[in-house]
Amino acid sequence: MTITTICIIGAGNLGTKIALQAAISGFQVQVYDVDHSRLQRSSTEMNLLIDQLNKSGQKTNVPSVEVMERVYFTFNLAEALQAADVVIESVTEDAGIKSEVWKEIGKLAPAHTIFTTNTSYLLPSQFAEVSGRPEKFCAFHFHDVFHSRVVDIMPHEGTDAKVISILEGLGRKLNQIPILVKKEHSGYIFNTLLIAWIDAAGRLLTGEIAEVEAIDKSWMINFNMSAGPFGILDNVGLDTAWHITSSRRNPSSRAFAALLKAYVDQGKLGAKSGEGFYKYPNPSYKSVDFLK
Amino acid sequence: MTITTICIIGAGNLGTKIALQAAISGFQVQVYDVDHSRLQRSSTEMNLLIDQLNKSGQKTNVPSVEVMERVYFTFNLAEALQAADVVIESVTEDAGIKSEVWKEIGKLAPAHTIFTTNTSYLLPSQFAEVSGRPEKFCAFHFHDVFHSRVVDIMPHEGTDAKVISILEGLGRKLNQIPILVKKEHSGYIFNTLLIAWIDAAGRLLTGEIAEVEAIDKSWMINFNMSAGPFGILDNVGLDTAWHITSSRRNPSSRAFAALLKAYVDQGKLGAKSGEGFYKYPNPSYKSVDFLK
Ligand SMILES: NC(=O)c1ccc[n+]([C@@H]2O[C@H](COP(=O)([O-])OP(=O)(O)OC[C@H]3O[C@@H](n4cnc5c(N)ncnc54)[C@H](O)[C@@H]3O)[C@@H](O)[C@H]2O)c1
Ligand SMILES: NC(=O)c1ccc[n+]([C@@H]2O[C@H](COP(=O)([O-])OP(=O)(O)OC[C@H]3O[C@@H](n4cnc5c(N)ncnc54)[C@H](O)[C@@H]3O)[C@@H](O)[C@H]2O)c1
Repeated sequence: MTITTICIIGAGNLGTKIALQAAISGFQVQVYDVDHSRLQRSSTEMNLLIDQLNKSGQKTNVPSVEVMERVYFTFNLAEALQAADVVIESVTEDAGIKSEVWKEIGKLAPAHTIFTTNTSYLLPSQFAEVSGRPEKFCAFHFHDVFHSRVVDIMPHEGTDAKVISILEGLGRKLNQIPILVKKEHSGYIFNTLLIAWIDAAGRLLTGEIAEVEAIDKSWMINFNMSAGPFGILDNVGLDTAWHITSSRRNPSSRAFAALLKAYVDQGKLGAKSGEGFYKYPNPSYKSVDFLK
Repeated sequence: MTITTICIIGAGNLGTKIALQAAISGFQVQVYDVDHSRLQRSSTEMNLLIDQLNKSGQKTNVPSVEVMERVYFTFNLAEALQAADVVIESVTEDAGIKSEVWKEIGKLAPAHTIFTTNTSYLLPSQFAEVSGRPEKFCAFHFHDVFHSRVVDIMPHEGTDAKVISILEGLGRKLNQIPILVKKEHSGYIFNTLLIAWIDAAGRLLTGEIAEVEAIDKSWMINFNMSAGPFGILDNVGLDTAWHITSSRRNPSSRAFAALLKAYVDQGKLGAKSGEGFYKYPNPSYKSVDFLK
């Protein structure tokens, strides 16, 4: 199967980056969003991203005009899907919204189109049936596209094996490292490890075993990493972390969720708000003295 | 309190390194072990370590003769303890052995001597009473002395606050970064995080969610780390990992313990035996292509 056209549904943070990478990789890209202003912003963001990439030296000489000519923005879903070989759905992380979207896509897309979702924590089997073609449905989960170049490929029980291998090839063409998640698992691999690690750090903190700095130091020194769990949490955003943690049921996770909520209620959302577990723009964990 | 003489009980892997660092830092060092041959080997190992340190450029110009003149090896416990300001017990990780040792030390050490244990997973309160001076008893846990320069200071409920601050000062003099663990907790901070992280990786593997390489890649790429959980396990040793995991009770940890046991039974102990999750001396996760 030759893939020529990729349709991105949802032009938010991730949809914009995936669409841009697809265009850089030479695909024709259709970008659809229900929110008209979001489509406008997506186009502006792509141009900014191209500038950043060219400056960072990560990519050299991304020809912005040529790349942007391959991206077509539309608020007409039928038009967006018309020539699509692959759909990458990256709308708001909400099972209800995604179900509605997949019902529509299933009606409008050509018969050969492969369906993928970029969901972070939901499962492909939640949308496979409603899309009308479970055998062509798979999770295709990007991390950050340009910085962490990982794409998880996670089939549900009914996904056709051919779809998996097509997506592996597509992942490589999109300059990502494809990681196969053999069975459905919420959070794929990385978030599963990350959450276990952060939960353990949360238990040490709420159990008053150790302070934030002591916990981060222990990890950073032993693994020569530039941040520990609380430094990472400040970057993820304490609101996002709270959102994920609050659905967990065991008592220690709940204690940590309550602590995160208290930070969020005080407006301490992490790096983006100027304060979280550390104070920004110069958090102590980044100072040269921290590991001395 | 001025510390002049440090007594190391147990001249094994860690005791040898701690004793050497103490001598490098200018302390008089008494080294005791029940096993005579182990004392001999400890002395040889110290000389090898000095060579390595001088070559690695981590320490420059450790004067081996001068340093080794400050180390005194003895199989007489009373003599070892006679002038000790601080005892660092680093005998075999076994509660029974450690209890016996602390009963003896308590009888023979001068009244002012501070008592510390380098235990990895046991708790200071398990030995504080039997030592006869709980208020002077504290965990003082080194990681690797030269590579990861962390020392955990973990009091039990009855430890005198003065002892904690003396040990913080001593930790710095021993070229370590002291990390305060405020309350007793098996595994301190680092091992607590490490075990949670490895447990999660073990669950992904035994649950057949993903393969070893996929799990390691996900972590390594996202955090720019040179190894993932299974690469780390191969370095820790699968026998050691099995030993730690086998005491855990939840079903998923038990499934992982059973998997580790199967590796150990086949002689696959990790890097040291030539095979574990990867094959050595050139494990695939260290190849330049692994993250491509
Ligand atoms: N943000 C991340 O770091 C990240 C990483 C990996 C995956 N994801 C996943 O990607 C998806 C999108 O996340 P995001 O961070 O880009 O969110 P976002 O809020 O930035 O973007 C979501 C977009 O979906 C649009 N949308 C909502 N309903 C729609 C509909 N019915 N039809 C078309 N568009 C619709 C919104 O207008 C918005 O532009 C989520 O499933 C999320 O879990 C996010
Ligand atoms: N190996 C590590 O990476 C590491 C790291 C931190 C802490 N520790 C802890 O340090 C302690 C020692 O570990 P190790 O790896 O050096 O073990 P090891 O087996 O290399 O050394 C233990 C030594 O204790 C001696 N010993 C046994 N009974 C004794 C007694 N009654 N009196 C005096 N000596 C006796 C043994 O002869 C041996 O030389 C353990 O509590 C361990 O948990 C180990």
